[in-house]
Amino acid sequence: MKKEVIESLKQIVGEDWVIDDLSKMQNYLYDETEPLLRPEASRDSIVVKPGSSEEISQILKYANKTLIPVTVRGGGTGVVGGAIPVKPGMVLSLERLNKIVELDEKNLMITVEAGVTLADLLEVLENESKLFFPIHPGDEGAQIGGMVATNAGGTKAVKHGIMRNHVKAVEVVLPTGEIVNFGGKLIKNNMGYDLLHMMIGNEGTLGIITKATLKLYAKNKYNGTLLVSFNTRREACDAVPKILQEGITPLAVEYMDRVIADKAAEQLGSTWPAQKGAVDLIFMLDEPTEDELYSNSEKIVEICEKYNAVDSIIAETAKEQRNILEIRSNAYGPYKDNISDALDIAVPPSAVPDFFDDITELGEKYNNHIVSLGHIADGNIHNFIMGENGKLPSYYEKLKEDMYKTAIKYGGTITAEHGTGKTRKKHMALQFTQKEIEVMEGIKKTFDPNGILNPGTIID
Amino acid sequence: MKKEVIESLKQIVGEDWVIDDLSKMQNYLYDETEPLLRPEASRDSIVVKPGSSEEISQILKYANKTLIPVTVRGGGTGVVGGAIPVKPGMVLSLERLNKIVELDEKNLMITVEAGVTLADLLEVLENESKLFFPIHPGDEGAQIGGMVATNAGGTKAVKHGIMRNHVKAVEVVLPTGEIVNFGGKLIKNNMGYDLLHMMIGNEGTLGIITKATLKLYAKNKYNGTLLVSFNTRREACDAVPKILQEGITPLAVEYMDRVIADKAAEQLGSTWPAQKGAVDLIFMLDEPTEDELYSNSEKIVEICEKYNAVDSIIAETAKEQRNILEIRSNAYGPYKDNISDALDIAVPPSAVPDFFDDITELGEKYNNHIVSLGHIADGNIHNFIMGENGKLPSYYEKLKEDMYKTAIKYGGTITAEHGTGKTRKKHMALQFTQKEIEVMEGIKKTFDPNGILNPGTIID
Repeated sequence: MKKEVIESLKQIVGEDWVIDDLSKMQNYLYDETEPLLRPEASRDSIVVKPGSSEEISQILKYANKTLIPVTVRGGGTGVVGGAIPVKPGMVLSLERLNKIVELDEKNLMITVEAGVTLADLLEVLENESKLFFPIHPGDEGAQIGGMVATNAGGTKAVKHGIMRNHVKAVEVVLPTGEIVNFGGKLIKNNMGYDLLHMMIGNEGTLGIITKATLKLYAKNKYNGTLLVSFNTRREACDAVPKILQEGITPLAVEYMDRVIADKAAEQLGSTWPAQKGAVDLIFMLDEPTEDELYSNSEKIVEICEKYNAVDSIIAETAKEQRNILEIRSNAYGPYKDNISDALDIAVPPSAVPDFFDDITELGEKYNNHIVSLGHIADGNIHNFIMGENGKLPSYYEKLKEDMYKTAIKYGGTITAEHGTGKTRKKHMALQFTQKEIEVMEGIKKTFDPNGILNPGTIID
Repeated sequence: MKKEVIESLKQIVGEDWVIDDLSKMQNYLYDETEPLLRPEASRDSIVVKPGSSEEISQILKYANKTLIPVTVRGGGTGVVGGAIPVKPGMVLSLERLNKIVELDEKNLMITVEAGVTLADLLEVLENESKLFFPIHPGDEGAQIGGMVATNAGGTKAVKHGIMRNHVKAVEVVLPTGEIVNFGGKLIKNNMGYDLLHMMIGNEGTLGIITKATLKLYAKNKYNGTLLVSFNTRREACDAVPKILQEGITPLAVEYMDRVIADKAAEQLGSTWPAQKGAVDLIFMLDEPTEDELYSNSEKIVEICEKYNAVDSIIAETAKEQRNILEIRSNAYGPYKDNISDALDIAVPPSAVPDFFDDITELGEKYNNHIVSLGHIADGNIHNFIMGENGKLPSYYEKLKEDMYKTAIKYGGTITAEHGTGKTRKKHMALQFTQKEIEVMEGIKKTFDPNGILNPGTIID
């Protein structure tokens, strides 16, 4: 990086908060994207760690004037290359913006700086409040700013939806340097255009989120986990909408091929509690009373039995619950070394059984042993495409595209929760019309006229 | 209107669906905006009633080429002049797009054309489904397209939020004539920018919504209404967050000054059931079991008593419930002839008591007997500014601006649910910075480069 850039940044944030030695910035050049799929990071990078929105404003004014690309970095837990700087330029890390600004119990809201991690947030709530925040994308190293910028999801979306449903306000530094505020501590707000929702899921391409106000909720006291087994994927799928139609809304309804469950358990030195059947549904429930927890669990089993469930296990003890959830969490474990890609497709929930059939067929056609698990009530299925001796199979791009096209045929989406990032950008035209992409380009141009923010992500 | 415009439109939609006689189009020139505040409709208007998205596409291509303004009209139930054509041009009415496209119980969704009224939607659900749709802005003549375009609210927002939370997909005709689709029958979708949310609340300025897919929910079987009285506004306000923190989420928590309740009851030849106290909270509850309905009602009363509630009445019979809700619905009735403006301000819920004090002070300062009611758990208060002998008081603009500034001081918004429309557009700069407005202008330009859609609304 040119000397004058290094000097200018040091002047803004101070000597200590700029890294210009390539060997010392390795942790800032990658995220959790599968190594085989990672876009290559530019070696001509510089890392800058501002301590305030005002410093970010100065940095962006400088970058916008000198046309230096800026890639924003939160917790680096993304899996689609969003945080990887692919052009010579700066990595702007938000780690120093780590203050809890206000726990506002009266409004059931909390305001935090963008660099606060999910772990920090959960700790503050645990220690200082009876309220809770429902979105959990798995990795608690995720930063709140990043969770807003990527519209994070997670398992509990059946009841609580996604990040978008729980963000009330953001402070944003625009690529042109202005500090703006979208939204407010308001339940309803119809003045002007809703720019808050434009920022949610923008993946650091339209502005840098520096502060966020999130909604909090009263906690339900009674938790339960229920494991129901079926012989076929279709029977398992068909039971789910019936449960929702009855007014039972679990926190999560997870689907796993049994082959995944058994391997994941074995790797942990444990045993998957279900024996009969070939696939499982895991229901996680939280209810305000013990009565409701039991009566809803019973109703779920009753409905599943109508769809030929072959077994059901109510995890009574905390230990039994933990065992099931730990095995579920380890689903990737046994495959880790040999997964080429863990896709993140969603289809309308009713289309899941047909989608599964098509995926099985594609797996046979390409001779790839695709296994599946996912957030089934959301229609969000993770399909693992297997590798060949630690490499992408030769037909990887073609198989992936066939899977994307299958999803889109059912009105689905290429990415339910991971985001477009850099690795899925080239498939935008599979899902959107030319005009739809043009509108997105226009929006990018409106916010970021010189295209300095996170180049190569979503849209250019 | 020029002859060639009339002829061109007749060619697109057919002779029967164009009105060019001013005397026959009066119903298309106004909405429900208070007569004293209505912007004047252009007398050089023409009404066109397309029968399909394709016809709308043709009309917009023509309008975009010839630069003729197009004002979209749904049910005409708006109160901020959104549907009033203030420039010579067309009124495009969506009344013929009135088909229920698909009731999709498996996905708990329904797809309707934009011109389907809320009454139509409720009827279909009542007759053909056990599922329900929660948003109800009061007037069932509202069309679904309009409800999406204005991000409609209503009383039940405490539990169900606003329209935005329940829209999954829209078909839109862009001002340049392209038919596009944003969103899908998906619970999670992170591909590209979220243009669905840009369309929700656009008030017919960015595109014409022609179809919408809405989420449906299982109905709770047990309904209850609870009336709790207090001596002061502050005590009533302070009780509300405590209830929400306990995990009790009523459908609605309505606030009324007693003076309104008594007058509204008298006009209906009825009696307001509460005598003690000066202000009331009305809680509407719906729960899945009778037990929960009773236990939550009891908990609410208990909490209110800690805040010095002086009386509480549980409406046991359907008749008692109806009486309370009818009187609440008639709140505007006694004031109708003498209201200058019923403002639609929201503040953070915790700021409501201070906001109330400030409003009382402003009323005294201007010698205007402002009365208040509202959706208190949402922080959304309707303040009635009284008129003078059927006219706006001389200080009306100044008082209104003072009230807006008061709301903004608390982090509030000028409009919680009614929208910006034409009547609040001039106050955009009170709530937003110059840069924030510039971004909105950029977005308008992206969608509508020639500014033909609904001129004079939100942004120009």
